[in-house]
This record gives sequence, structure tokens and C-alpha cells, in this order.
Amino acid sequence: MTDLRSTVESYWAAADARDWDAFAGLLAEDVVYTLPQTRERISGRERYVAFNREYPGDWRVRIERIVAEPGHAVSWILLAVGLEETQAITFFTADEDGRITAVTDFWPEPYEPPAGRERLVERY
Amino acid sequence: MTDLRSTVESYWAAADARDWDAFAGLLAEDVVYTLPQTRERISGRERYVAFNREYPGDWRVRIERIVAEPGHAVSWILLAVGLEETQAITFFTADEDGRITAVTDFWPEPYEPPAGRERLVERY
Repeated sequence: MTDLRSTVESYWAAADARDWDAFAGLLAEDVVYTLPQTRERISGRERYVAFNREYPGDWRVRIERIVAEPGHAVSWILLAVGLEETQAITFFTADEDGRITAVTDFWPEPYEPPAGRERLVERY
Repeated sequence: MTDLRSTVESYWAAADARDWDAFAGLLAEDVVYTLPQTRERISGRERYVAFNREYPGDWRVRIERIVAEPGHAVSWILLAVGLEETQAITFFTADEDGRITAVTDFWPEPYEPPAGRERLVERY
């Protein structure tokens, strides 16, 4: 079983190109998508492709980092909508044929740091 | 070069035990910590250990998943403070001796899902 790096690269390339046939081809039929921040879950390839296809906005994807091992991978991406850029971290699990069986997304938002640690940190 | 799984397990075990000597022993002297959500950065082992040692709260760590490859790893942890639980995703980079040279943390917060996708999702 090879690591999942190229699968994750293809996943984001297909999403960025709105190539939903290529995107669907990477997914197991019973893929489960989970969004822990909203406690939402989507079950099945057809629904998950529809969710992505219908996702609003002229978003573009840039991969910042992928960490991969056999059966598991994580991507850190930058998602740009016009001049606004957000970051997303996505955990992937695949079956023995390399098809994606689970996708779990996190969308961390900017926040102001708490007071008291200024002597240790710099802002960038 | 071995993968970083055991290093990351030791990192969180040391943090959870407040064993700052063990924690420091996993870090390169010039380790850089980055928090993209606040745009904060901490440079150097001494400052980074101080930041963690002084971090307030009686927090406990539970590892949800680690994905590792040579030189890179990612952890997804649950951090509990009393009954409150938050999730964190942390990217690690190490040098050829396996010492951690870069740590990048994300702390995603819960949010309400946007309307319009109820037919595709279930809440859990």
C-alpha cells in the first residue's frame, strides 16, 4: 500500500479545477465526511460530491503541506476567495485500493492572542 | 531517518506530565513555534519551553490521531480543561537527529453551519 500523498494532491487539483468526475473517482462509495467544528457529517460519495460541487464562492486551493503514510494523510491548504485567504487542515483515510473512505476538515479562524506572553513571542 | 510518530507521542506525554526536561530534550535548540491564527512566533528552545510551562489551566492531552513520515508529522489532539474540550492540530518538522525544529499549531473553534445544505448533512 503506497502512501496517500499523490491521492491528496489529485483530490485538491480536482477540487480546484471543479473536475467532479475526477474528484469522485478518488472516493470510496461509502466515504464519510466529518466537520467536527459544526458537528456535521455527510455519508456517501454522491452526497459528498454534491456538497463540494454546490459549495459557494470562487475559491482556489493552494497546498501548503502534505504529510502522508500508508492509509492516512493530512493536508494543510490555503483557500483563497478573491483577496481573502483561509486555512484548512484535512485528515484523509483510505482503503487498501487507495480510495478515500474518510475526510475530516478543520477551518481555524484568526483570533487575538491573550495578554501575558508578549516577552516570549513576536508577531508576524 | 525514522518517522516521527514516537517523538510526537513523547512530546504530548511530556507536556501532559509537565515533564519540561523531557519536553526540552525533544526540541532542537533553534526550534521555531508558529501560531498562524494569532500570527505569533516563538524562537528558541528556552522560550518555547517557558511558553508551555507557563500556559495557564489544568489541561490534559489525549491523542486522537498521528500521521507521520520521515522528518514530518501531524497530531490531532483533544485538550481537556475540566469538562471543556478543545481540539488542536499540530504540524511538526524534525532535523536528521529527530529533534523537533518547527511546531505549528491550529486551534479550530466550534461554529454554526451555514443554511442551505441540510439535505446533505446530519448533525452528530
